[in-house]
Amino acid sequence: MDPRVRDHAEVLVDWSARVDAGDDVVVRVDEGAHDLAVAVAEALGERGANMLATYVADEIESAFVRAHDGEFDRDPDFEAEMLERADVVLSLGGTRNVAERGAVPGDKRAAYRKSRTGIRELRMDTDWVSTIHPTRAQAQQAGMGIAEYRDFVYDAVLRDWERLADEMARMKDLLDEGSEVRLVKADTDLTMSIENRTAVNSAASVAYDSHNLPSGEVFTAPENPEGEVYFDVPMTHEGARIRDVHLTFEDGAVVDWSAEVGEDALDDVFATDEGARRLGELGIGMNRGIDRFTDSILFDEKMGDTIHLAVGRAYDSCLPEGEEGNQSAVHVDMITDVSEDSRLEIDGEIVQRNGTFRWEDGF
Amino acid sequence: MDPRVRDHAEVLVDWSARVDAGDDVVVRVDEGAHDLAVAVAEALGERGANMLATYVADEIESAFVRAHDGEFDRDPDFEAEMLERADVVLSLGGTRNVAERGAVPGDKRAAYRKSRTGIRELRMDTDWVSTIHPTRAQAQQAGMGIAEYRDFVYDAVLRDWERLADEMARMKDLLDEGSEVRLVKADTDLTMSIENRTAVNSAASVAYDSHNLPSGEVFTAPENPEGEVYFDVPMTHEGARIRDVHLTFEDGAVVDWSAEVGEDALDDVFATDEGARRLGELGIGMNRGIDRFTDSILFDEKMGDTIHLAVGRAYDSCLPEGEEGNQSAVHVDMITDVSEDSRLEIDGEIVQRNGTFRWEDGF
Repeated sequence: MDPRVRDHAEVLVDWSARVDAGDDVVVRVDEGAHDLAVAVAEALGERGANMLATYVADEIESAFVRAHDGEFDRDPDFEAEMLERADVVLSLGGTRNVAERGAVPGDKRAAYRKSRTGIRELRMDTDWVSTIHPTRAQAQQAGMGIAEYRDFVYDAVLRDWERLADEMARMKDLLDEGSEVRLVKADTDLTMSIENRTAVNSAASVAYDSHNLPSGEVFTAPENPEGEVYFDVPMTHEGARIRDVHLTFEDGAVVDWSAEVGEDALDDVFATDEGARRLGELGIGMNRGIDRFTDSILFDEKMGDTIHLAVGRAYDSCLPEGEEGNQSAVHVDMITDVSEDSRLEIDGEIVQRNGTFRWEDGF
Repeated sequence: MDPRVRDHAEVLVDWSARVDAGDDVVVRVDEGAHDLAVAVAEALGERGANMLATYVADEIESAFVRAHDGEFDRDPDFEAEMLERADVVLSLGGTRNVAERGAVPGDKRAAYRKSRTGIRELRMDTDWVSTIHPTRAQAQQAGMGIAEYRDFVYDAVLRDWERLADEMARMKDLLDEGSEVRLVKADTDLTMSIENRTAVNSAASVAYDSHNLPSGEVFTAPENPEGEVYFDVPMTHEGARIRDVHLTFEDGAVVDWSAEVGEDALDDVFATDEGARRLGELGIGMNRGIDRFTDSILFDEKMGDTIHLAVGRAYDSCLPEGEEGNQSAVHVDMITDVSEDSRLEIDGEIVQRNGTFRWEDGF
């Protein structure tokens, strides 16, 4: 076994999920994640935890949902009771075909999803963490060979997380104390307010209320954007490729947009509702293990030397208690490369220049 | 997908487990049983059941048990509560390496098994059924290519079970009404009492209290055997191959034994305890889809045109209420071919001659 699989399992169990002896751990194993599941089982055995592996394969769910008449039982007891008693749920993604889910009629899939709302909530009430074991299907999606893709995944996952969490805490402090953010690069000069907002240090650990491995971003919920911004990192939204997006904000809302590829898809996004034209998120990617776009949001939005903005819904965790942030049915992340000829300012002070943070050498 | 996989799933769900709409079904998926799991998911969806797939891979269990300090929690709640609420548990065997379990120290494996006694009992309290999806590892164990092995498995599984159950009911009635059985063939003339014993019609369905697919045997608990018997079908006991066994019974117990291969292993069996020299089971194999020895007891003992006897422990289900049958730490099945030059008599009347039952053409 690639020794990095074992390292991945240890980061997942210790840093991310903080598993203790006696914990009841559900391990959700995707069909291509067998090897990681073996390594996780070994780590859980060493920690003296209890383990129950469930099998989460798109082919199985698709076959079940397609064959069903669509009147699904709500949150079946036997699964709910298992999750209610679980301390930790580890989801080991690893699909063998990223297109499998598309094979089910949308209305049936929606009905199935809806019937499982309570199951999902019970899972979210545990110390849950989602991660990905590299498969050929994902490598193909990312346009890489499997060896290259494994390097890519493990570079992203096997970080010095403690150190990165400390570094991200600096960025969180700056954002928490600041009032206004300004981003400047080619075709970009955007200001937005972050007054009274709280940033999240997403450090790939339940201890930071961060549930994805890899992670590595600090994000907050800005408002009242003014100016223009250019997103040069490709993106996929609902299956549509979108490239080279320009947005113009006036009085806090998008008033003009264009894209070299996929402008239709962008039109649809902005037609969704009023909130779709306002900002939901400002995220600073700080995981330098991720160095390229792979068309997987788990990785893309955490890329080092990138900044992303999302139009649409804002996260409650960034808002003052009781305050409602931007509401929308969508939350669409768009990423811009800040590695060259760029600056990020908070209250007029530069905190990141050409990708380098103010506390780093070479700033 | 081989259409027989779908047929297998339908036999399992409908004939064997009798799944109804709304049933909560746990599907235990072995690492090589993915395709059968997909077909089972489809069948469960069609019936309107609820499904939760668990992942049962020897490599995962071995990694967990090996890494653990051996002080296992007893029957963890989260798994127990799931099973307590489940109506049906379907175990889809399909190993990728029959030798995997041997890689764990015996004492740790024993401690783990012991810690899970309650979990096993909860599973046995459901309408559980175990079956096997053909894998290359099992084909190798059986000494066949995968295509040939698939034919072998589906010939055994895809029977007209209703008809076979009716036929087996005839044999059960004869055994239930009879007092003495006599088996005669080359080097064999054995009599035994079946007075007051109840035979089990093992028809591969929970409706018959039969939990293996395939099945296809009628068995009871004989006593007081007298005479000699020759077992010409090979067997494996605790990893040891045993061939061409001769046993001599006097006053109900084995007094002499020999084997062309593996006589040492036989010595160990008979040295276990007093009950190991007495009979625990007489079984009539009636599944003619199984036509050869494959070193898997799930198949071997159900072979058509064979009769098996087990030394050691008897099954309670064959005994009158409150009566204790033969007790022993072992239950070792031995199989004899009755297809030629043989007869099985009940109370002096021939019920099977050269493999043909009295109700069949050509008797």
